[in-house]
Amino acid sequence: MYSLGMDIGGTNSVFGIVSEDGRIVKSGSVKTKAYNDFLDYVEAVCDGIRPLVEEVGGFANIGSFGIGAPNGNFYNGTIELAPNLPWKGILPLAQAFRERLGVPVAVTNDANAAAVGEMTYGAARGMRHFIEITLGTGVGSGIIIDGKLVYGHDGFAGELGHVVVERGGRSCGCGNKGCLETYCSATGVARTAKERLETSKEDSLLRAITDRPIESRDVYDAAVKGDRIALEIFEYTGRILGEALANFVAFSAPEAIVLFGGLTKAGDYIMNPVRRAMEDNINVLWRGKVKLLISQLKEADAAVLGAAAVGQSTCRS
Amino acid sequence: MYSLGMDIGGTNSVFGIVSEDGRIVKSGSVKTKAYNDFLDYVEAVCDGIRPLVEEVGGFANIGSFGIGAPNGNFYNGTIELAPNLPWKGILPLAQAFRERLGVPVAVTNDANAAAVGEMTYGAARGMRHFIEITLGTGVGSGIIIDGKLVYGHDGFAGELGHVVVERGGRSCGCGNKGCLETYCSATGVARTAKERLETSKEDSLLRAITDRPIESRDVYDAAVKGDRIALEIFEYTGRILGEALANFVAFSAPEAIVLFGGLTKAGDYIMNPVRRAMEDNINVLWRGKVKLLISQLKEADAAVLGAAAVGQSTCRS
Repeated sequence: MYSLGMDIGGTNSVFGIVSEDGRIVKSGSVKTKAYNDFLDYVEAVCDGIRPLVEEVGGFANIGSFGIGAPNGNFYNGTIELAPNLPWKGILPLAQAFRERLGVPVAVTNDANAAAVGEMTYGAARGMRHFIEITLGTGVGSGIIIDGKLVYGHDGFAGELGHVVVERGGRSCGCGNKGCLETYCSATGVARTAKERLETSKEDSLLRAITDRPIESRDVYDAAVKGDRIALEIFEYTGRILGEALANFVAFSAPEAIVLFGGLTKAGDYIMNPVRRAMEDNINVLWRGKVKLLISQLKEADAAVLGAAAVGQSTCRS
Repeated sequence: MYSLGMDIGGTNSVFGIVSEDGRIVKSGSVKTKAYNDFLDYVEAVCDGIRPLVEEVGGFANIGSFGIGAPNGNFYNGTIELAPNLPWKGILPLAQAFRERLGVPVAVTNDANAAAVGEMTYGAARGMRHFIEITLGTGVGSGIIIDGKLVYGHDGFAGELGHVVVERGGRSCGCGNKGCLETYCSATGVARTAKERLETSKEDSLLRAITDRPIESRDVYDAAVKGDRIALEIFEYTGRILGEALANFVAFSAPEAIVLFGGLTKAGDYIMNPVRRAMEDNINVLWRGKVKLLISQLKEADAAVLGAAAVGQSTCRS
């Protein structure tokens, strides 16, 4: 038996057929933004999926279809008010695919999918309690308690990127100020870099980048070369993230926190300050006891594998 | 069938026999601090409980014994390193009572017990997702997800009184700085009062209290009379609590937050600023959607009822 998984991103929608041992055996994609009409998009995805399914023996061999999507709602099987997708309002995603493909469909958001992927195939195998934090363009989270994703009353639980960490701090896309995401996402790091360069006169390799905006990746490249401002940027980012993680632990007392996504590629430059701030701020009950791990999912596959795993765990239980 | 419930406080340990419809039909207590030896204490409690049980037909009619205790650990049935009890180290509470009384015993902390009591008999009846915040000498919490208490990996989940809300803020008994508890407990309110009076010259009814430390209750009495400093103290306390609650919502997306304990007696003086700060800081996904409620448990009975309810839900499932 195989599972289908799909990750809907603002640019691409990537789908794949996943084997029981967690390999993506067939995959494809469509351009999300190429379809102004939601149902045209659904048809295009189905047209992409059907030939792949034929290659593994048809839909009789497909047990479930899991989809990770921005603002994906597990309870309703919908995408609700996603700011970075072409379609507005509340979209009946699960229903649309179930009707066309005849398989059970589960929908969740991308960070939740990553958490289930981590538990099924990654660094959190065998864990019953952990928190996955995705550090990408934004900051997302998937919270696992007793081996299950926390969805909450309305299906939207686990929006830890929008915990306010600085009263009256940076403006966030969500309309609030001071959200974790405005500091600890890749865009947050770039924002910190811009601020630091503007408010200091200190020399930095980053000042050589004048033809385009500085990116999180540039800060890493400069840090590797010992650039002091770059190192300070990671210290600052890591401190804010570590302090937030210490507070998250007081909520669900996880065995581990798993960090996923681009920012973790900065390795010790970011992980050391995160770990230090987390331990400095964590309640004594948990000091030295909560593992801080980097995801073991391959970033290119994680979203599809995670979505497929959500489909499996939901539709077969 | 009846249940036993007990609340172990630093001063008194109150126990009771609870009927299936949630009434305490028999009750008693012992002085917690009168017993330097833990097993002497256990014997004294058993001596208090046995005659009550006889009056309802003996232990054949008792289904479970639930105990709420400071630092009570559900998984281990222990009290672990409780700072305000006479006995040190890790105490095998469940085992000690199970051996002597022959009934199944469940242990949890007092705030968790309050949450289960709220779900069973109080303002959260019928809810599957809510957070109980206890505002007493300290600040505690019990988190209910999918109708179950969150215990986490080690049994200590839900220590929201020790979330850090002010970087480098007030010193907390736990060793950290800036914990929610240092601002929003009854002692936190008294601390705010002391600070405000010291740093301002403004007239206040609170200045008349010179023969003893100001208490949270005094601030309420002054607020009722329109005292500006007292009103500001509640504004300040409520703002910090409301901001924290907004962050908690991003974690578990509860249907409601239920506030329990002394501070809620200040009514609108505290609830209005809490509600305002919560709504101002909550993510747009939940704005106007999460109920902020005051506990419907009678404070005198809540701890025993809640503990009994934890015993019931654990030992009979």
